[in-house]
Amino acid sequence: MDHDVLSAFDGTAGELDRADPLAPLRQAFELPKGVVYLDGNSLGPLPKAVPKALAQVIERQWGASLIKSWNDHDWINLPSRVGEKIARLIGAGPGQVICTDSVSVNLFKVLAAALGLSARPAKILSEADNFPSDLYLVEGMNTLLGAAAPAIEVVQTDALLEHLDASVSILLLTQVNFKTGAMHDLAELTARAQAVGALVVWDLSHSAGVLELELDAANVDFAVGCGYKFLNGGPGAPGYVYVASRHQGSVTQPLSGWMGHAEPFAFSEHYEPAPGIKRFLSGTPAILSMTALDAALSVFDGLELAQVRAKSEKLGAYLIHLTDAIDDALELISPRDANQRGSQISFRHPLAYPIVQALIEAGVIGDFRAPDIVRLGFNPLFNSFADIEQAAAVLKTVLMTKAHFEPRLNARKLVT
Amino acid sequence: MDHDVLSAFDGTAGELDRADPLAPLRQAFELPKGVVYLDGNSLGPLPKAVPKALAQVIERQWGASLIKSWNDHDWINLPSRVGEKIARLIGAGPGQVICTDSVSVNLFKVLAAALGLSARPAKILSEADNFPSDLYLVEGMNTLLGAAAPAIEVVQTDALLEHLDASVSILLLTQVNFKTGAMHDLAELTARAQAVGALVVWDLSHSAGVLELELDAANVDFAVGCGYKFLNGGPGAPGYVYVASRHQGSVTQPLSGWMGHAEPFAFSEHYEPAPGIKRFLSGTPAILSMTALDAALSVFDGLELAQVRAKSEKLGAYLIHLTDAIDDALELISPRDANQRGSQISFRHPLAYPIVQALIEAGVIGDFRAPDIVRLGFNPLFNSFADIEQAAAVLKTVLMTKAHFEPRLNARKLVT
Repeated sequence: MDHDVLSAFDGTAGELDRADPLAPLRQAFELPKGVVYLDGNSLGPLPKAVPKALAQVIERQWGASLIKSWNDHDWINLPSRVGEKIARLIGAGPGQVICTDSVSVNLFKVLAAALGLSARPAKILSEADNFPSDLYLVEGMNTLLGAAAPAIEVVQTDALLEHLDASVSILLLTQVNFKTGAMHDLAELTARAQAVGALVVWDLSHSAGVLELELDAANVDFAVGCGYKFLNGGPGAPGYVYVASRHQGSVTQPLSGWMGHAEPFAFSEHYEPAPGIKRFLSGTPAILSMTALDAALSVFDGLELAQVRAKSEKLGAYLIHLTDAIDDALELISPRDANQRGSQISFRHPLAYPIVQALIEAGVIGDFRAPDIVRLGFNPLFNSFADIEQAAAVLKTVLMTKAHFEPRLNARKLVT
Repeated sequence: MDHDVLSAFDGTAGELDRADPLAPLRQAFELPKGVVYLDGNSLGPLPKAVPKALAQVIERQWGASLIKSWNDHDWINLPSRVGEKIARLIGAGPGQVICTDSVSVNLFKVLAAALGLSARPAKILSEADNFPSDLYLVEGMNTLLGAAAPAIEVVQTDALLEHLDASVSILLLTQVNFKTGAMHDLAELTARAQAVGALVVWDLSHSAGVLELELDAANVDFAVGCGYKFLNGGPGAPGYVYVASRHQGSVTQPLSGWMGHAEPFAFSEHYEPAPGIKRFLSGTPAILSMTALDAALSVFDGLELAQVRAKSEKLGAYLIHLTDAIDDALELISPRDANQRGSQISFRHPLAYPIVQALIEAGVIGDFRAPDIVRLGFNPLFNSFADIEQAAAVLKTVLMTKAHFEPRLNARKLVT
């Protein structure tokens, strides 16, 4: 793969862009002029479809139809409708994905649900390099559970398989490492976990929308993911939950609000979970934020993820190609093999923080990740090869002038 | 009070409206023509400030500043800013209220936090007539906790005091009954609960924005509430959490996502809760939905809740006055004494469902509540005495022609 990709770089960025079948999709986004946005893995940019869709829901639905919109405009089924749009992107058949709450809240639901299916004493296995918030949630759940809490074993990534034995009840992983972009083999690890009797919980926040995911084919048990990264749903867009059909009848989740009830409007005395994935709803859905995500997902209409993934691999390979050996202190920490990484390229550099600041000042928006990582994410829906070329050129200039950096020791950039 | 209010009704609705100092506020809302909206206690109408505020955040912040908006437009502190706006409405000093998640999710956090402060074995006391979702959440938490779950005692409202003894750890109540509008004396019950060593958790969803609340003065421990009812924040607007300062240092909550971390962007290995109310945040805040609520709250700028409450009492008394004895089968189930009810008037009638449908067809939007309740809520920010007069007149007409109702046995109206 790498060889084929690299041979394609005999052309210029302009030629690569002209040959790119996805290039016209860039027009679906509002992108500020003069900016190369390589942080769509943190907050996707504004899809042009969003303002109009939101104005319509606000003025014609909320404003004009008021409470009746729950029926007349089918707000009540918006979490399912958006869930089904996401389902297609992650290889999930109908009735297994619902849009709701934040990733954190959803992870709590799913962990508790998985725990309910596990024999005791239970044990959760995860990796130290997991997205920290996912591990915080386990800590929070365990504090609540006290003596009944599952054991939690957090190991280095290369020790995961060694620790994946019959003592493990739940394997909790984020597919793409938020720092390095290194990607787990989701199907392989799912199979290995299930072979020792464990359930898997995948966090797809840095995967969905840019990878070819096949959750059903991989027999995944549970997954959660984020709406505001590669799905471009806007700041704090609701996340989603995937629960395999085979588990839905037997799991409960503790955030049992009325929207997850079999008959929410019966106001019955006791909680009775909705028969399917709807039992993973809690309170009233955030219709406005969810509408933005709904509109953002329309960019994917008719699109094959295989095309998106192919371009993502190529953008990454191009960035590596253009930045190779530009500075001895700039260490590529993402896998060189495109099959082993998500849609980002990360470097380690002792001056990572001021480098990222200088990139941003020059119009190339990337991320700093403590303590020393420069993270450049790309989304094939709007990033071009010209973007990559410009980013590499600016990075080169910044590194050549790095001696001039003032130490910048103030508060770090707040990005997600 | 009732006497004074009733003597004021010597005038016409038009005269009452002309004498109403809050009447101009109606202009702050988009209200469809020909509609009398008495369901703002379920979904508040669209404040005119919302579309512009949201368009600005979407196009000028998300669209133009992208990820930098977390700093440059201070999205990161939006939950605190909106929390402080709500704090003023509920009588809470600074640093005790934060806007986040749904009421259901927030109630889970707060119940778990209160449980963490309680001696074991713990017991939660609530009432059968509490908003059902609040009781569902207790059930969900208890299923998760298994053997460590607190006892839950759910009694009739008039038996609450009798059951409020030293065995109770947490008194969980919604201040205003969603069916009848009957209102608990928050200060009195808080004092009684604390006198037996219990903590209080109040759900203010049907209170905030229309009552004169004094949470600090009443020494309340915990409260949650809703953003889309009397606060008009839009469908599924985020809710809020109140935690008294005295508890903040010693409580934890289990949905410990990264936004509640002391240093979210340090991505440190373990969860360390933020020092104050921010520890009740979980995942990334829903900036778009929260922006709508933020703009909606601007209607309250400079407004004294005493004025709002006074008008609410008067609207309720006027509705009772105009509907008294119009039909033998129409039974007022809200307290006649304005001091004992929230901002709604409810009736019981065997044909409640078709009556509500007929009201809606005639442009008077109220609520049906199973099995036989007609619920009319009013918000003094936009409802006029003319609204009440028209609602009463339409109700009278509907009741006079009720013999013509077809039995309407199909699915019930979906309203919150």
